[in-house]
Amino acid sequence: MGPVRWQVVAVAAVGLALTLEVLPSVLRWLRAGRRRRRPRRQVLFFPSQVTCTEALLQAPGVAPSGSGCPCSLPHGESSLSQLLRALLAARASLELCLFAFSSPQLGRAVELLHQRGVRVRVITDCDYMALNGSQIGLLRKAGIQVRHDQDLGYMHHKFAVVDKKVLITGSLNWTTQAIQNNRENVLITEDEEYVRLFLEEFERIWEEFDPTKYSFFPQKRRH
Amino acid sequence: MGPVRWQVVAVAAVGLALTLEVLPSVLRWLRAGRRRRRPRRQVLFFPSQVTCTEALLQAPGVAPSGSGCPCSLPHGESSLSQLLRALLAARASLELCLFAFSSPQLGRAVELLHQRGVRVRVITDCDYMALNGSQIGLLRKAGIQVRHDQDLGYMHHKFAVVDKKVLITGSLNWTTQAIQNNRENVLITEDEEYVRLFLEEFERIWEEFDPTKYSFFPQKRRH
Repeated sequence: MGPVRWQVVAVAAVGLALTLEVLPSVLRWLRAGRRRRRPRRQVLFFPSQVTCTEALLQAPGVAPSGSGCPCSLPHGESSLSQLLRALLAARASLELCLFAFSSPQLGRAVELLHQRGVRVRVITDCDYMALNGSQIGLLRKAGIQVRHDQDLGYMHHKFAVVDKKVLITGSLNWTTQAIQNNRENVLITEDEEYVRLFLEEFERIWEEFDPTKYSFFPQKRRH
Repeated sequence: MGPVRWQVVAVAAVGLALTLEVLPSVLRWLRAGRRRRRPRRQVLFFPSQVTCTEALLQAPGVAPSGSGCPCSLPHGESSLSQLLRALLAARASLELCLFAFSSPQLGRAVELLHQRGVRVRVITDCDYMALNGSQIGLLRKAGIQVRHDQDLGYMHHKFAVVDKKVLITGSLNWTTQAIQNNRENVLITEDEEYVRLFLEEFERIWEEFDPTKYSFFPQKRRH
């Protein structure tokens, strides 16, 4: 080989080496770009406009009434309807960790998910379980597992995790009073780190609130 | 040129072209990686361990006692100390939108920031302004602007924005009861979209709660 030819071969080799070196990074970058665009990042502010949620909360098998609902409420989107949609997207699991839960619409959404086979688990505060209008009793009757604290401190979280992938958390207690009258915020995020940290908190509390550990069953504890 | 030489030149050209093509992407990817690592994403869970916060809350000019504080409390980190640190990082502005604010440590931190020249603005709920132990009166006396609702609904947010860059939000009311006894969460995020949405909410409410609009000054409203 002459001297020119060697130079060309060297450049070709360097070019190829560089290409092979960076291609995986580029592919990762392109994939990461797609991943980064997708994660949901949303805030719902309350009070929510009062809108009709009938079409969202139809039982399976019932023909959707859609915009044909004859009620006099507005039929557009609201913070409440968007919160309902985020919950109703669940296909496999729903963890709920709620200080107070009395909104009939949110209760109905959770019951529908349970009927569809979604694994629903609920943690709540003992002081708010049996309050007038609480949805907790209805959910238990429907067969949903509920655990609660027995501390003096409040179980004051207000979060939900949908399909272990979407975290819904904020200041909003799930009551009609809060939804319709209060200044409140609800973050919806698919950020993996936030989802993981809240799921870990859920599992910690779920374990700690295991009914076999309740101290008002002292006979059980002694065995 | 012989046939072998042409092939080598072709490979060299393709290799160089590919390298030049992907290099900017690779550089962007590397930069994006650095950017992505930086934004803070943290969750503080409560109840917080009770720790000594004296060293954090020293007035300017006082020699820091540091770990030399003689009190019997533990002197390590806790969820409360981390929340204090996040607030005390403010250099220019602090927006507070808080349902209830009675924690003396958090009140002290806000007062220190005000003394350091940080522009502090506070929005709170009227029902909780003058409650026993409320920090709101002390902050007003120190010269900090406070605005409040006059609705039946609650101003139930619990968020802070530090230097228009860091959002601190969650279920935690800023009370010693909640900090020491309740299950609570506080997200700390530098996500620009979340920060922007909460700042917009703050400005909306700040404007709406302008004292000249309070209806218990009916004479003023008529002019």
